[in-house]
Amino acid sequence: MDFSISEEQLQLRDAVKRFCDGEYPQERRGQPVSIDRRRERWGMMAELGLTGLILSEACGGSDLGMVEQMGVLEELGRCLSPEPYLSTAVISASLIQSMGNAEQRERWLAPIAAGELRMALALDEPRGRYAYATMACRLTPEGDGYRLDGEKCLVLDGPYADAYVVAARHEGSLQLLVVPADAAGLTRTAGTTLDAREIATLGFAGVLVSPSQHLAEGERAEQALQAVLNRASAALCAESVGAMTELVEQTREFLKVRKQFGAPLGKFQALQHRLVDMVIALEQSRSMAALAAMAVDEAGDRKCLKLVSAARVSVARAARLIAKEAVQMHGAMGMTDECQVGHYVKRLMVTERLFGDVSYHLESFENTTATAA
Amino acid sequence: MDFSISEEQLQLRDAVKRFCDGEYPQERRGQPVSIDRRRERWGMMAELGLTGLILSEACGGSDLGMVEQMGVLEELGRCLSPEPYLSTAVISASLIQSMGNAEQRERWLAPIAAGELRMALALDEPRGRYAYATMACRLTPEGDGYRLDGEKCLVLDGPYADAYVVAARHEGSLQLLVVPADAAGLTRTAGTTLDAREIATLGFAGVLVSPSQHLAEGERAEQALQAVLNRASAALCAESVGAMTELVEQTREFLKVRKQFGAPLGKFQALQHRLVDMVIALEQSRSMAALAAMAVDEAGDRKCLKLVSAARVSVARAARLIAKEAVQMHGAMGMTDECQVGHYVKRLMVTERLFGDVSYHLESFENTTATAA
Amino acid sequence: MDFSISEEQLQLRDAVKRFCDGEYPQERRGQPVSIDRRRERWGMMAELGLTGLILSEACGGSDLGMVEQMGVLEELGRCLSPEPYLSTAVISASLIQSMGNAEQRERWLAPIAAGELRMALALDEPRGRYAYATMACRLTPEGDGYRLDGEKCLVLDGPYADAYVVAARHEGSLQLLVVPADAAGLTRTAGTTLDAREIATLGFAGVLVSPSQHLAEGERAEQALQAVLNRASAALCAESVGAMTELVEQTREFLKVRKQFGAPLGKFQALQHRLVDMVIALEQSRSMAALAAMAVDEAGDRKCLKLVSAARVSVARAARLIAKEAVQMHGAMGMTDECQVGHYVKRLMVTERLFGDVSYHLESFENTTATAA
Amino acid sequence: MDFSISEEQLQLRDAVKRFCDGEYPQERRGQPVSIDRRRERWGMMAELGLTGLILSEACGGSDLGMVEQMGVLEELGRCLSPEPYLSTAVISASLIQSMGNAEQRERWLAPIAAGELRMALALDEPRGRYAYATMACRLTPEGDGYRLDGEKCLVLDGPYADAYVVAARHEGSLQLLVVPADAAGLTRTAGTTLDAREIATLGFAGVLVSPSQHLAEGERAEQALQAVLNRASAALCAESVGAMTELVEQTREFLKVRKQFGAPLGKFQALQHRLVDMVIALEQSRSMAALAAMAVDEAGDRKCLKLVSAARVSVARAARLIAKEAVQMHGAMGMTDECQVGHYVKRLMVTERLFGDVSYHLESFENTTATAA
Repeated sequence: MDFSISEEQLQLRDAVKRFCDGEYPQERRGQPVSIDRRRERWGMMAELGLTGLILSEACGGSDLGMVEQMGVLEELGRCLSPEPYLSTAVISASLIQSMGNAEQRERWLAPIAAGELRMALALDEPRGRYAYATMACRLTPEGDGYRLDGEKCLVLDGPYADAYVVAARHEGSLQLLVVPADAAGLTRTAGTTLDAREIATLGFAGVLVSPSQHLAEGERAEQALQAVLNRASAALCAESVGAMTELVEQTREFLKVRKQFGAPLGKFQALQHRLVDMVIALEQSRSMAALAAMAVDEAGDRKCLKLVSAARVSVARAARLIAKEAVQMHGAMGMTDECQVGHYVKRLMVTERLFGDVSYHLESFENTTATAA
Repeated sequence: MDFSISEEQLQLRDAVKRFCDGEYPQERRGQPVSIDRRRERWGMMAELGLTGLILSEACGGSDLGMVEQMGVLEELGRCLSPEPYLSTAVISASLIQSMGNAEQRERWLAPIAAGELRMALALDEPRGRYAYATMACRLTPEGDGYRLDGEKCLVLDGPYADAYVVAARHEGSLQLLVVPADAAGLTRTAGTTLDAREIATLGFAGVLVSPSQHLAEGERAEQALQAVLNRASAALCAESVGAMTELVEQTREFLKVRKQFGAPLGKFQALQHRLVDMVIALEQSRSMAALAAMAVDEAGDRKCLKLVSAARVSVARAARLIAKEAVQMHGAMGMTDECQVGHYVKRLMVTERLFGDVSYHLESFENTTATAA
Repeated sequence: MDFSISEEQLQLRDAVKRFCDGEYPQERRGQPVSIDRRRERWGMMAELGLTGLILSEACGGSDLGMVEQMGVLEELGRCLSPEPYLSTAVISASLIQSMGNAEQRERWLAPIAAGELRMALALDEPRGRYAYATMACRLTPEGDGYRLDGEKCLVLDGPYADAYVVAARHEGSLQLLVVPADAAGLTRTAGTTLDAREIATLGFAGVLVSPSQHLAEGERAEQALQAVLNRASAALCAESVGAMTELVEQTREFLKVRKQFGAPLGKFQALQHRLVDMVIALEQSRSMAALAAMAVDEAGDRKCLKLVSAARVSVARAARLIAKEAVQMHGAMGMTDECQVGHYVKRLMVTERLFGDVSYHLESFENTTATAA
Repeated sequence: MDFSISEEQLQLRDAVKRFCDGEYPQERRGQPVSIDRRRERWGMMAELGLTGLILSEACGGSDLGMVEQMGVLEELGRCLSPEPYLSTAVISASLIQSMGNAEQRERWLAPIAAGELRMALALDEPRGRYAYATMACRLTPEGDGYRLDGEKCLVLDGPYADAYVVAARHEGSLQLLVVPADAAGLTRTAGTTLDAREIATLGFAGVLVSPSQHLAEGERAEQALQAVLNRASAALCAESVGAMTELVEQTREFLKVRKQFGAPLGKFQALQHRLVDMVIALEQSRSMAALAAMAVDEAGDRKCLKLVSAARVSVARAARLIAKEAVQMHGAMGMTDECQVGHYVKRLMVTERLFGDVSYHLESFENTTATAA
């Protein structure tokens, strides 16, 4: 289960680690932070080359792939980073890079690489969560563009995003659009997730969309959406692996302290076995996440979806095991907010449900298998 | 599994329900509330006769038993009430009533019944959570009283309590004392639990304790402590049953809405089966909680401990099942803070660890069985 | 969870225990036994009054209820008795006693009480297991009686039964009939269950059924069938409680031996906790089984079905926990046939699926609740 | 998770598959078979080159590695083959090949390759299962050889083996010896495992062991024993993957039939999701087994042990999930002996406990990690 890592990847990883250690010290994880501080951090991440990691050099990016990005995501997951890295630098960046024309790429990607722009994906809708085939957001022709009406919800990082990639339909055909946050007719309502991240509900009332805001439509849009959802799922696997790594580490530390304080050795051994169980589950998740990342970079669409869905299901199962054991092994301490364990458990619960839950991914896996047969 | 309920109990229950519906409307549960509002609520609970429920009429109480109190606790659990009912009206009230002399009862119990005083139990210590036999808090004779030194932690409702029942040791002998919050040498640090309730760490640096503050010592104190821990455990079972009832209800409602929105009927049936599983687990917990309450009122110490520990273990197992299923069946909604499910899950996780976790109660159960044999 | 037991019940229980200790010594449980020996045992059970326990004194019975019969069933389950007690003395006896006319009761019940007759219930069908509302076995009028055609399967104790109670339909109306094993047109094929008990598939090809073989039809038959299925479920709960009791005992003994051989004490304590978990699950099952038995004797139909289904689900869940833990705690020994644990686990797996599995009983529970609401 | 397979491996696999289809038709799996038939089969396996697969060409073998042998083991596991392939062609063959001198290799390996000899490993002892460091079987010097005294148990395939590799100690130093089944002073008692395979308890009373029967001693023997246990564990993983594959297939078939018979589609979809869960668990096990096989062929000792132990734990966990789901999804059918599911479940339960159970392998994993750190 060892996947060798290049020197360049190691250096990147080290830089991210130093950033995280400085910005997210253990006792502050899971705590609120000011808007200004977050904007500042986003700039720091851009300076490290993180926000443009997968963007072409023409846009100020580093032209790296999903495999490299996974290392960044794992570190961010490990310290519960609340920055909009997934929304902006993974999802929006790859969608615009692959679907956008030259003008659009320049308009949106350079600012992302420079850390000046944060974006979010507006996909889920109130009545049809994960039901991406039956969206109610609709476009009506207006001049040489469209009017957009409808509602989007569960938009991660939505309350402070500068612009949105929006999925809507016109006569059944999927359309992917970019809509700035200050568009006339767009209202947003802020909410929070269980793990205290920010989500928005967006209302579109006759929002005008010009041709320059169109990224893709029809079959091409469907494929682009599926590809970016695969990418997002691989990214979520990496984030979860990071969070699980930290839970395992904290549990290991806690057991050491407990041992010092004179718990009977035998009991300690029984707990030690449970810790090893957690380690094995973590290592399997790491392998699955790595395979998913490779699939995003290299495999065909169907095979990619299959591997990514398998990875989401496996990682979710491992995360539940590790979360349950971490909480239980911390005993009474596990119920205090001071103990970090609760924050990680909540993060893992939320991550499990972003862009498809276990049931959704079991169905995806089944569909790819069934059609392939 | 039906335990018949008297007319009086029903009226009490209705009054509590009305109070809860008014004070804890669904959308506010789990949210912060001002100190003044909480003080006001405590007064309202006193007016309803809740704070003095098990106190003698001489102290302004209603002279009822644990069985009646369970109904109150279940309702409070059902709406995630954060008031210090367990700490004050269950634990402190019963300890002082059973151990205190006439003067102490008058000094502390009348204000509790009147809703003018809130108390908390200072029992756990940093190095020996649940290790009640080896407390490090110590007493040193001073004049006709003692000096108290040491540290207590995880004191539920501790940050705003007016006084504490403290457990400490003098030459190995357990002592139970009442210490006012404003005693010289007492410092308190506020913290929070995962479910956002308040806990305190208390530091005692040569706090003077006069004879009038002594409740009990030696074997009598040991028995009183065990008896009140049994009572607290039965109370926690009732609280959890309330919270589980609400989780089951909310999941049932969610499924109805989901059905309306046109989920395929068969899938709905599979979910329905899982809901029934939750209902059965809830009903078993309700039975176990009722048996535990009866045991507190009537059974001998050993049998009571055995039943109470069995109830804690059973209720914890049911709570985990119900929490897991409620979260999973809510799908994507389960990850938003707007959805109440997360608050209930956190409450159940914390309740499971108060005054002994599953491992502690398995050991208690085993010890009573082993010694009895 | 204590249900007091009368002196008479205790004596009966003791007699059954002595019979079981003599006939089913531990090392022989789960092993094959000769036909003659089994016939002999059936006679011994009749002499003890077990086969006619719930029959009226007129038929040579003891006129006792389900509560008393549960003690017998628990002991039989405890020693993995393979005798057709459930099929004959619980199911067939109660059906004929409640539905049969005087002549039928004399014809069939006296020999059951005397230990001269063994019967079985032919209910399940190949395509519709547990789908009792849509049976394909059909009756065609012939003279003043019927011709019976169709197939029955999973007939427990079927290969050596002397007669069968058969459920079939005529123009949609349920009919309950008694058919002797030697009826012309009846063929039987023997099979075995996972736990090595005997089941039969019965083929009916124009088997003639005279009016004297009719027990009930229409709504009366539906109610009788539901009532006897409730009774069978309560009986299966008692049998499982017996088997679980033995699994817990054998695990306790194994741990003692393991301790003697010098396992580290701490590890032993961790195992001890898991044993206590098993004990608590067993005690809950015992309570549920007792409630189900009382419901069979006293409650109305709907409430009975609800309690019985809840009991089946709870007992199945406890049985899985206890079986899993017993196997795991026996370590390497658990894989040998010499170790009894495997036989008990297989018995519990089979019992869980007789006359409705967990899914079937979750649906029953739901239906009673839904209709009642 | 795709590991590419060479043309040669595919041909071998096909040959094994044809042999298995012919010799182990589905309805006969798990059933007893005559001694003569088994001897005949062993000859057929030799003709296919299976018994000498990893032996050098000098001994009549094919000089292939663990990776190739895994394909054979998976097929044998898939059809519940009861032949002593693991004992003889994996364990004994590799031990003698790596430790034996030229004379010993000729004496024992050529007959194994020719299908004329069956061997078994005598390792476990009654009081110290899996406690390989503290064996009680002892050697006493006698002439230029030793006398062997003690008892071995759980010797898989022991009742009909022609010779044994025995592990014993002399003054603390581990010794590996070959002892023919007809040695004077050797008694064997046959037993069976839960899945009806044959095991023996061997008694050694002053059995004379000449120098020519010595394979290795001291540190060299310890390393050889650990290496062969790693190999056996990898082999068991492959066998289990085969058995799990069949369970998944049979469950898939059963669902298809159930669907035909008109189960509501939605329910079927919920079951389909559970089937996908089984598939993902199976695929992960297949990957882990493949990694373990590669580690046996290529990795250093410590890394090999770590990977192999992780594989055993992961495969055991997947096997439990798959076994549980297969049984439950077969509903009532799952309780009949006619249904193959029960046989596979029992095989998986036994395999989980051969040469170390989950607890043993968690400890191995932990030890390699701890020492490495």
